[in-house]
Amino acid sequence: MSQPTVAELGELELLKRLQPFCESALIGDDAAVLPPRSQATVITTDMLVDGVHFSDRTTPPQAIGWRAIAANLSDLAAMGSVPTEITVGLALPGHTPVHWVEQVYEGMAACLRQYGGKIVGGDVVRSPQPVIAITALGTVAPQRVIRRDRAQPGQVILATGWHGASRAGLELLLQPDLQTPLSASDRQTFIQAHQYPVPRLDIVELFDALEDDEFGAIAGMDSSDGLANAVLWLCQASGVGAQLMRSRLPLPQAFTPWLSDATALDWCLYGGEDFELVLCLPAEIALELLPVLGSQASIIGTVAASPEVLLMDDVGDRSPLTLTWESCFQHF
Amino acid sequence: MSQPTVAELGELELLKRLQPFCESALIGDDAAVLPPRSQATVITTDMLVDGVHFSDRTTPPQAIGWRAIAANLSDLAAMGSVPTEITVGLALPGHTPVHWVEQVYEGMAACLRQYGGKIVGGDVVRSPQPVIAITALGTVAPQRVIRRDRAQPGQVILATGWHGASRAGLELLLQPDLQTPLSASDRQTFIQAHQYPVPRLDIVELFDALEDDEFGAIAGMDSSDGLANAVLWLCQASGVGAQLMRSRLPLPQAFTPWLSDATALDWCLYGGEDFELVLCLPAEIALELLPVLGSQASIIGTVAASPEVLLMDDVGDRSPLTLTWESCFQHF
Repeated sequence: MSQPTVAELGELELLKRLQPFCESALIGDDAAVLPPRSQATVITTDMLVDGVHFSDRTTPPQAIGWRAIAANLSDLAAMGSVPTEITVGLALPGHTPVHWVEQVYEGMAACLRQYGGKIVGGDVVRSPQPVIAITALGTVAPQRVIRRDRAQPGQVILATGWHGASRAGLELLLQPDLQTPLSASDRQTFIQAHQYPVPRLDIVELFDALEDDEFGAIAGMDSSDGLANAVLWLCQASGVGAQLMRSRLPLPQAFTPWLSDATALDWCLYGGEDFELVLCLPAEIALELLPVLGSQASIIGTVAASPEVLLMDDVGDRSPLTLTWESCFQHF
Repeated sequence: MSQPTVAELGELELLKRLQPFCESALIGDDAAVLPPRSQATVITTDMLVDGVHFSDRTTPPQAIGWRAIAANLSDLAAMGSVPTEITVGLALPGHTPVHWVEQVYEGMAACLRQYGGKIVGGDVVRSPQPVIAITALGTVAPQRVIRRDRAQPGQVILATGWHGASRAGLELLLQPDLQTPLSASDRQTFIQAHQYPVPRLDIVELFDALEDDEFGAIAGMDSSDGLANAVLWLCQASGVGAQLMRSRLPLPQAFTPWLSDATALDWCLYGGEDFELVLCLPAEIALELLPVLGSQASIIGTVAASPEVLLMDDVGDRSPLTLTWESCFQHF
């Protein structure tokens, strides 16, 4: 089976191969044209670097494409917007197999088919190291944008989904021979969480039921850099603090027979890449949302006036733990 | 003098240092929010890789930033749009001096101050190789978009500025001790053309004088990948050919005492990165524009029905040269 590289195929032929994944002509004009829109546009951009943010060792090319898109759609969801357009910049070594590039695009297209948004433009260039740059646009009514700086003392903190699952999946991928008490289904769930994370655009749909004036009392962001990071950001941006309850942290149940308390806590708070949403909002709105979200969300604590972010030990009798930026993922 | 690296400074402090260059809070939310707009949005994206598209050997960091923005603004100009917002993705090794990053941003900000557009968001990540990803948005009335596929036989081909100047500047930068008959001022002009190219947004302003229905008869693109590449693209997209006149090619005058005919021709047609505009349009519109453009533009040929792109030797008696994609810059 012939496996041509991008250098063998050449730029023009490569763009032709990628054309079916794209809405408008990738190679037709200097830029894409989007129609006028009456709503606000949300714009976000992410770079992913081979060996830093993805690796063939843990992530097949379809998953690399899926994750790159999912991370950006998660940012759009965190702002309360729905995805509309995407641009894709790819920097690739000449020896990259064309098939690899096509599979990355397949993964991106699959994620976009499921959650919305179309590839409208891009750039493919030569580089010693593969790098993917995604810019995603979304749309939202201006008065319904979710921001970080609106958390208020007395509000509850709601986290969607489980936290630590992506980190667990990464561990299983890095150590395929690791002995664990996990069921095959739990293993698969964790690996899926790492390779094919779900941007929570379903939450944006739920927001449709809220009135415009309720948005002024909702702060939110995604947990791409970890649950602790999200709570710290929301608190710093709003000039408040928080008390999280140890018993309410959204740890996957399968952690209990597998991990020590310390590791489970670490992965849940600092693992990152779960792409869930963390919201600070009045209890009455949270209680409207929770029944619809089911086991997929929980109230993990409350917003406090004093600026510390404390993890309260409501199961044992240890003193509160202060969460700090130092433990969080830093890009450098 | 202390020269901290980005790894020493850390991500959060780095983003704070870059904040003054940006319109909205880089670190405030998951994404930036742009107001509704009644016109069409043009979107373009470019990736620049250290050692492939820029190098500290030929380009100081301010110029790296300037060129990255200018290349994107040139794409916006080629579509007839004016710049509005920019996002900047930076992938950097941890050992990169913070000062280098600030200077790149200074160059970007300087170009944006001069030609319009504001940095509204971005991403900074770790990478073994520096990579810059820019996405630029512009705005244009939907009926006044310039496209590539509207060249018609009988039209003239108008090129703005000089072609080959950026390539000449690169040569002078790569070989600082090169003996040439160039004046200091010519040297400086070529180096400036390479390091600080000018996106031709002035042409977009000139278009304001045209009626809506005239845009249906204008094809255009920028010459970022070379003059020959631009003419080949316009012809292929429009299903036409072209005859270029050897005597009308926009070669810088200073090439004559310096370069052989063959080298001068090669740099003018294939040098690239001049970021000028190449337009196919009815002669009467070209003649309206030319007096305003002065020596900064010229009619270099005509659009023909048969699909070849020919370079006619109107000074000597050589047979026509057929221009092909094979001689053009390819990204792989």
